[in-house]
Amino acid sequence: MQTAVRRLILASSSPRRRDLLQSLGLPFTVVASHADESVAPGTPPGAWVEQLAVRKAQVVAQQQPAQPVLVVAADTIVVLDGKVLGKPPQPAAAIEMLQQLQGRVHEVYSGVCVWHHPEGQYRCGHRCTRVWMRPLTLEHIQRYVRTGEPLDKAGSYAIQGLGATLVEKIDGDYFTVVGLPLNLLSDLLAEAGVALF
Amino acid sequence: MQTAVRRLILASSSPRRRDLLQSLGLPFTVVASHADESVAPGTPPGAWVEQLAVRKAQVVAQQQPAQPVLVVAADTIVVLDGKVLGKPPQPAAAIEMLQQLQGRVHEVYSGVCVWHHPEGQYRCGHRCTRVWMRPLTLEHIQRYVRTGEPLDKAGSYAIQGLGATLVEKIDGDYFTVVGLPLNLLSDLLAEAGVALF
Repeated sequence: MQTAVRRLILASSSPRRRDLLQSLGLPFTVVASHADESVAPGTPPGAWVEQLAVRKAQVVAQQQPAQPVLVVAADTIVVLDGKVLGKPPQPAAAIEMLQQLQGRVHEVYSGVCVWHHPEGQYRCGHRCTRVWMRPLTLEHIQRYVRTGEPLDKAGSYAIQGLGATLVEKIDGDYFTVVGLPLNLLSDLLAEAGVALF
Repeated sequence: MQTAVRRLILASSSPRRRDLLQSLGLPFTVVASHADESVAPGTPPGAWVEQLAVRKAQVVAQQQPAQPVLVVAADTIVVLDGKVLGKPPQPAAAIEMLQQLQGRVHEVYSGVCVWHHPEGQYRCGHRCTRVWMRPLTLEHIQRYVRTGEPLDKAGSYAIQGLGATLVEKIDGDYFTVVGLPLNLLSDLLAEAGVALF
């Protein structure tokens, strides 16, 4: 059995991850993962996103028939002063989060897992990128939150959308901030026998 | 006359710049600019991309009727060891360029101009981002060039395509590398009375 011809499944309902995986030109199908996203308190950010990427891949793999597939999953968190910022539950929380982030540097961690089904073997890794957000007035933040863009995003902004105008610069991999580190994923896929070109 | 309701023209035939401007949610039309792209020898990279962005905007503005419009133009160059790398004329040149870039850091400069027509006033600026390309074997480079992606790209790679897997990290603004610094453009548009949100 050639792993190179295995069907690829993206275990994610994120349209950003789907778009990024599409940019690599490989055919794949999407299966949303409903894994438990709780993590033990005190877990370091890198281990956090790897654990969740592995768990998301495993949950989707277990739903598959016995035919060989590769399941790709990812997890992303935003970290400020060592504290993880999640997705804002409502606009007021998004405003508060952006007030914390504005004018400062924070880290975005993304973990990736490539899971071999039905063998149950996997490889995973993570990347970390530092993001400098521009100084923003409360009024500017309020107008951004009113666009609706921040509401389903970790850290309350989307660097690939209007949020691009809020970011001064990054140090690291851009795709880690969007939610799927493509250089890491291409390494993990190569180890699984899948060459992109 | 409110500048905020001026029609916006993108003076570029680049599909990447069109996609990026679209991500800001403003309506605009596209007019390809056929400006002379020659620059005096010895021009520093920042001045180089600003000069060309201004010239592209001016050429398109001069073709417009007298109704008020804002013309947006941009120019991007890749610089290695102070030398500008252009678009590769054929695959052999792309291979040579990528052999120079692999395993090293280079700079990408993008200039932006917002031109007020018919007044003939403009504002411009530029951003510079450093890009670390991964170490690549000749065979890997040859396979990448065979995808056809490098052939119309300054520096022979597309960070928003398969080239994403060739880049280790960046230091600066990602959109500068794609070809249109969105944070700089949003500042120039704000100065012209155009708020994105």
